[in-house]
Amino acid sequence: MPFKYNRLDKDKAAVLFIDHQAGLLSLVRDYSPDDFRNNLLALADITKFFKLPVILTTSFEQGPNGPMVPEIKNMFPDAPYFARPGQINAWDNEDFVKAVKATGRKQLIIAGIVTDVCVAFPTLSALEEGFEVFVVTDCSGTFNTSVRDSAWLRMQNAGAQLVNWFAVGSELQRDWRNDVQGFGKVLADHLPQYANLMQSYDSVQPKK
Amino acid sequence: MPFKYNRLDKDKAAVLFIDHQAGLLSLVRDYSPDDFRNNLLALADITKFFKLPVILTTSFEQGPNGPMVPEIKNMFPDAPYFARPGQINAWDNEDFVKAVKATGRKQLIIAGIVTDVCVAFPTLSALEEGFEVFVVTDCSGTFNTSVRDSAWLRMQNAGAQLVNWFAVGSELQRDWRNDVQGFGKVLADHLPQYANLMQSYDSVQPKK
Amino acid sequence: MPFKYNRLDKDKAAVLFIDHQAGLLSLVRDYSPDDFRNNLLALADITKFFKLPVILTTSFEQGPNGPMVPEIKNMFPDAPYFARPGQINAWDNEDFVKAVKATGRKQLIIAGIVTDVCVAFPTLSALEEGFEVFVVTDCSGTFNTSVRDSAWLRMQNAGAQLVNWFAVGSELQRDWRNDVQGFGKVLADHLPQYANLMQSYDSVQPKK
Amino acid sequence: MPFKYNRLDKDKAAVLFIDHQAGLLSLVRDYSPDDFRNNLLALADITKFFKLPVILTTSFEQGPNGPMVPEIKNMFPDAPYFARPGQINAWDNEDFVKAVKATGRKQLIIAGIVTDVCVAFPTLSALEEGFEVFVVTDCSGTFNTSVRDSAWLRMQNAGAQLVNWFAVGSELQRDWRNDVQGFGKVLADHLPQYANLMQSYDSVQPKK
Amino acid sequence: MPFKYNRLDKDKAAVLFIDHQAGLLSLVRDYSPDDFRNNLLALADITKFFKLPVILTTSFEQGPNGPMVPEIKNMFPDAPYFARPGQINAWDNEDFVKAVKATGRKQLIIAGIVTDVCVAFPTLSALEEGFEVFVVTDCSGTFNTSVRDSAWLRMQNAGAQLVNWFAVGSELQRDWRNDVQGFGKVLADHLPQYANLMQSYDSVQPKK
Amino acid sequence: MPFKYNRLDKDKAAVLFIDHQAGLLSLVRDYSPDDFRNNLLALADITKFFKLPVILTTSFEQGPNGPMVPEIKNMFPDAPYFARPGQINAWDNEDFVKAVKATGRKQLIIAGIVTDVCVAFPTLSALEEGFEVFVVTDCSGTFNTSVRDSAWLRMQNAGAQLVNWFAVGSELQRDWRNDVQGFGKVLADHLPQYANLMQSYDSVQPKK
Amino acid sequence: MPFKYNRLDKDKAAVLFIDHQAGLLSLVRDYSPDDFRNNLLALADITKFFKLPVILTTSFEQGPNGPMVPEIKNMFPDAPYFARPGQINAWDNEDFVKAVKATGRKQLIIAGIVTDVCVAFPTLSALEEGFEVFVVTDCSGTFNTSVRDSAWLRMQNAGAQLVNWFAVGSELQRDWRNDVQGFGKVLADHLPQYANLMQSYDSVQPKK
Amino acid sequence: MPFKYNRLDKDKAAVLFIDHQAGLLSLVRDYSPDDFRNNLLALADITKFFKLPVILTTSFEQGPNGPMVPEIKNMFPDAPYFARPGQINAWDNEDFVKAVKATGRKQLIIAGIVTDVCVAFPTLSALEEGFEVFVVTDCSGTFNTSVRDSAWLRMQNAGAQLVNWFAVGSELQRDWRNDVQGFGKVLADHLPQYANLMQSYDSVQPKK
Repeated sequence: MPFKYNRLDKDKAAVLFIDHQAGLLSLVRDYSPDDFRNNLLALADITKFFKLPVILTTSFEQGPNGPMVPEIKNMFPDAPYFARPGQINAWDNEDFVKAVKATGRKQLIIAGIVTDVCVAFPTLSALEEGFEVFVVTDCSGTFNTSVRDSAWLRMQNAGAQLVNWFAVGSELQRDWRNDVQGFGKVLADHLPQYANLMQSYDSVQPKK
Repeated sequence: MPFKYNRLDKDKAAVLFIDHQAGLLSLVRDYSPDDFRNNLLALADITKFFKLPVILTTSFEQGPNGPMVPEIKNMFPDAPYFARPGQINAWDNEDFVKAVKATGRKQLIIAGIVTDVCVAFPTLSALEEGFEVFVVTDCSGTFNTSVRDSAWLRMQNAGAQLVNWFAVGSELQRDWRNDVQGFGKVLADHLPQYANLMQSYDSVQPKK
Repeated sequence: MPFKYNRLDKDKAAVLFIDHQAGLLSLVRDYSPDDFRNNLLALADITKFFKLPVILTTSFEQGPNGPMVPEIKNMFPDAPYFARPGQINAWDNEDFVKAVKATGRKQLIIAGIVTDVCVAFPTLSALEEGFEVFVVTDCSGTFNTSVRDSAWLRMQNAGAQLVNWFAVGSELQRDWRNDVQGFGKVLADHLPQYANLMQSYDSVQPKK
Repeated sequence: MPFKYNRLDKDKAAVLFIDHQAGLLSLVRDYSPDDFRNNLLALADITKFFKLPVILTTSFEQGPNGPMVPEIKNMFPDAPYFARPGQINAWDNEDFVKAVKATGRKQLIIAGIVTDVCVAFPTLSALEEGFEVFVVTDCSGTFNTSVRDSAWLRMQNAGAQLVNWFAVGSELQRDWRNDVQGFGKVLADHLPQYANLMQSYDSVQPKK
Repeated sequence: MPFKYNRLDKDKAAVLFIDHQAGLLSLVRDYSPDDFRNNLLALADITKFFKLPVILTTSFEQGPNGPMVPEIKNMFPDAPYFARPGQINAWDNEDFVKAVKATGRKQLIIAGIVTDVCVAFPTLSALEEGFEVFVVTDCSGTFNTSVRDSAWLRMQNAGAQLVNWFAVGSELQRDWRNDVQGFGKVLADHLPQYANLMQSYDSVQPKK
Repeated sequence: MPFKYNRLDKDKAAVLFIDHQAGLLSLVRDYSPDDFRNNLLALADITKFFKLPVILTTSFEQGPNGPMVPEIKNMFPDAPYFARPGQINAWDNEDFVKAVKATGRKQLIIAGIVTDVCVAFPTLSALEEGFEVFVVTDCSGTFNTSVRDSAWLRMQNAGAQLVNWFAVGSELQRDWRNDVQGFGKVLADHLPQYANLMQSYDSVQPKK
Repeated sequence: MPFKYNRLDKDKAAVLFIDHQAGLLSLVRDYSPDDFRNNLLALADITKFFKLPVILTTSFEQGPNGPMVPEIKNMFPDAPYFARPGQINAWDNEDFVKAVKATGRKQLIIAGIVTDVCVAFPTLSALEEGFEVFVVTDCSGTFNTSVRDSAWLRMQNAGAQLVNWFAVGSELQRDWRNDVQGFGKVLADHLPQYANLMQSYDSVQPKK
Repeated sequence: MPFKYNRLDKDKAAVLFIDHQAGLLSLVRDYSPDDFRNNLLALADITKFFKLPVILTTSFEQGPNGPMVPEIKNMFPDAPYFARPGQINAWDNEDFVKAVKATGRKQLIIAGIVTDVCVAFPTLSALEEGFEVFVVTDCSGTFNTSVRDSAWLRMQNAGAQLVNWFAVGSELQRDWRNDVQGFGKVLADHLPQYANLMQSYDSVQPKK
């Protein structure tokens, strides 16, 4: 069966941030807190850089799950935002699905907490409806790596593509020349090791 | 090939606890004893909470394998219980299979010790007969993570879905509003980190 | 220099639970949540079993650090309890130190969150005043194992003894015959693998 | 696509030990030496216990690769044995393939060193010819776990089933009653933790 | 569906080294620096030994990404070399693709930095065009093992074969007798543990 | 021998940042890049918050080691800064030692890259001269954890105290009431998990 | 303070096997079962090879702790054997201590289960009485590596020497020429990787 | 007790390579083969660069232990070389000790295989005789990290300093200006990540 490579395309993709809430973040143990926060903000910056449609949703935000991480919320003040009254699978929330479909996008970039539930359920639902789903593995967290591994395999089997934020950004960018400065800044802000390369490089350039 | 998402449904699912015996538990080395015990009791509580049909079975319980873990046995005093006289694959025990079929359920949630044998064999048998099988990865234990990984891949290839107890509970619950208190208690009893969130939250609520 | 083995003695020891608060627990990443909770409750049970004097203290419990874990607080309703108004090192709180000294005990069993601060600081202070300090390593948690390792080495160098809860219980018990049933129950409640041994053993005893 | 569970059957299976040579064993780093040796001898005992046809082969045994592990060779003195003059893929050796086909078996249980070459190559070749291949993961070793993981995925994708020695033995045995003493001895000899269960159990049986 | 084993063939394969640049190497954290460098040079030696067509490409080599690793560049002075002006996916560079097609080879052996982008993107593109792609896992590096694992699964799902350099060399060599000395030297130069076997062996040969 | 607890004191301590250079950062492999960068900036913020004297030094900054990390350099524009012309041990640079002594401080908080050289050497030198040395373990990085562990043991044996940045801040702060807002901000900026606690807490406070 | 190297001496040393019981072995999780069993039998063989006085003791062997591992017991049928009626610290059993002293040996080689209690307590007691104690780390097991590490540090601080079985054997042997065949056999029986070396070596020796 | 920092000094130090033999290398499992080989050659290069006296010794090199690694032997053709006839502790070989003393050096840099025996024994013997011993941890290998850790603690307690090859080189070099090119080459040859820094740096220098 020949393989068809439907690349992420900035005119076809939308981003769903699902349940990145202050309380739920304390459940994430498959990434260090610094790494996870950095990954998440990187994806947010990429989303903004490519002006992708974005949809935010939370679960029970008035209770112990806590409010959506303020950095994310503040970056997308105009994005559709759904504080779900109870549905665990965001796809069970009609308003959320309507908003997704209203974007007109067929490629869904999904990240959330926890991977095995808040990410896996809408991923499987969206795949069933024919969307192409890109699960951002390093912006989705859960209880431990054993849970993560089995959730990844379940989603892989259903047809989801597993990607990391850096791959998402690079696949959307296509060509550095589309905006070297802009894309470089996104990377430097979230890859300290890449920022170091740039600093070393700049320090030996002739001063103009 | 379009993907069909057959979600776990509390009217379609049954739970099979296979060989969770006191002696065999000492073989489990891919989870810490505390983690594994907690996971197992969580699945039992979920089973009870959703009133799912449950079937228990053991292998050679008079010998060194030891009796079924008493907490599980005592929670389901009326469940069909099969002390298999010798069959390693529970599906080779006719009474067991009859009991499974008598539930009328097409979704089988399977957990057991050890993953590569007591879980994998009936999983493959049930898949062959057209059941949908959900292997509860974190309630199934074995000798080490290398054995676990290859057993997971074998079952994945055959069509089993790999899930953890938290995903099972959440997929069955669908909507928190179906019973916030009840479901919340199950989680709090088995996710200490979630219980902490609740305690912190409650402590700052105005006293009524 | 000859070594003097000052064993833990139930007539000489007191237990200090420092900052085991619901919010701070979410910072602990060097143990799984299940393991840590179980360890902590084991130490509480041991404390109660040997009727050791116990002192509780918290830091900023009205704020995000949250209330002391209710199980601990409820087990010791009459214990001196100090909600410190601001001192990070509990030993800087005069009332706390007075209460410690009022126990008349020279052996301090210390556990807390986080290891490198809430445990290490009072440990070093108490050592300076001539107390024998036993740090309960597996009931003290912190950000990651790198931080834990350096905190352990700092305390070791100052003369603290590093012990785990099982060693604390065993060193206090001295002889099983002092109370086989009682001590056995404490272990079975917190060592699932030991409880399994007991169940297997009991299942093959002749019924009386 | 419905799944067909072709179980390992002692009348349909043959075992291929490929390049378990003294020198090559020093390359195996994804298992500890004790674990690997024990696993390998367990598979050999299972082979003998079920009287499965067995074929042995080595690569360049006069050179640094060294002789086949003597325990294996001595256990199967009458087995077809092929010291390959140069072919890396054992399936490229006509005599070897003829011997395999001469067994009349359609299920091939394959183990060897190293996993990514000496196991993977004949596995892919045999799958192409329509054999059912069961790769014994914990009796096959290689340079490190990264290499192991990618070799497993390559073979999984081609249709091989990944199994461990304990699963092989259990799937062949089907029912303990076929020979409780015999099968129990195989397990006790290679699962120290299971032997301990037996010893504890035996020690509390009434003496006859 | 019967499996077809299209083996690597020295008359059908070409090697693509993608973005092995001095700066980018500092991003590789899923292998130790010594291991990665050794793996990479091993693949280069294999490429040369089998006289495979080779194509080199870099991304932004005048900037912080740095020049291609000199050992690689110097080994293949006559190979087509493409310093891409901006395309992230090498397959988006027309000259590069033309050069690949000009080799007339249908099997592409691909390695690069980073796995999830510089390797994954052209791999998916080449698969779409009907090439057989062999991703050399241990000569491709990235940020951490979590990113690596999800990139591997994405490529596996698209039909890529995951191989390590030792498997590449062995599958091309087919038979040691094609050149024992030559192939042995490649291995000895890059497998210190194999070189040790040879030295031990040689030391006990009778002197001629 | 009685233990004397010389606590870190904001009137007695100075901070030495040694060789945190853009190029050298690429050598650090015992922490993830995100974690390490965050730790380092946390220590810098603490230094500033407590207005501790600070001394900066670099090694060969015109060459491949690269310039000092700009964030650090920019935070302390007036700090004594020594671009060492060649001395590996900063303590061999007379100007550096003079500057250290000119602070009049007896407690030296030292962090640097790499732990085993740039940190260990001046630590041992300063201990010899009677300074109290606090090595900030999680702001000092090196090639791998094996190297780190042996460097820690060497310094521990010589009398250095191993601390992490959070312990440094807490030991200097002594009492939250000295500046709750200020110290809380430092923590929230560098402990995402603590920031989450604060956000959850704030979200349930009655609005004023 | 000059260091005095009191080497293990076969005329000065005795071996204490403490609580290596079938049930307690199931608690050991800091070594794989195969590794631990092999290590333990290696120490037993060494003990026999050097004809060291040996003392065996168990705790509550009639209950769930189970009988002493039969291989150990059977190897030393004439050794003093103390089934302690209740004392947790074997040194609290007067008969045990008398037997130790009756050996006239000043060097005690101690191994047992669990490290933090059954090994640590008599180690500290024996050190206090002036014995030189050599704790055999890889023949002593416990719940996890965190517990092991803190137990090691506690014993190290008290003056115990931490050794592995291979170091014990080698320090006692002093010179291979004392019995090449005998000592070589002990190693080959318990170091599969060393046995492989021997087999490779033997295979290329000229036949006599 | 004030600390005295006796730094490694190229006029006071000698290097002992103990039992780095081809066969014994296959026992080393606490480092990857590539890492270990690279570390060892780095130490050899440092030894040569500083023209330190060097002594080589092997154990039973005619048997399975195999010959000394040829690279080491060939680098030091004129170094005293002792093929010990049987002594396990090299310090028990009178000729070896005489050669050590004949160097007139008081600082011994020791590396060998295996850490717990071939390194630890002569280290303890040399410490007893008043030498300063620097154990090169990453050029000394053994069976696993558990054995390594206990061997390190034993040697640390006796007064040995644990160092890695990079620290040895840097402590001897003192000042880069003593020979920038020479020392830089040693580092570049054995720190690929440092070589990359240099290449990136050189590539942006103006061509002369």
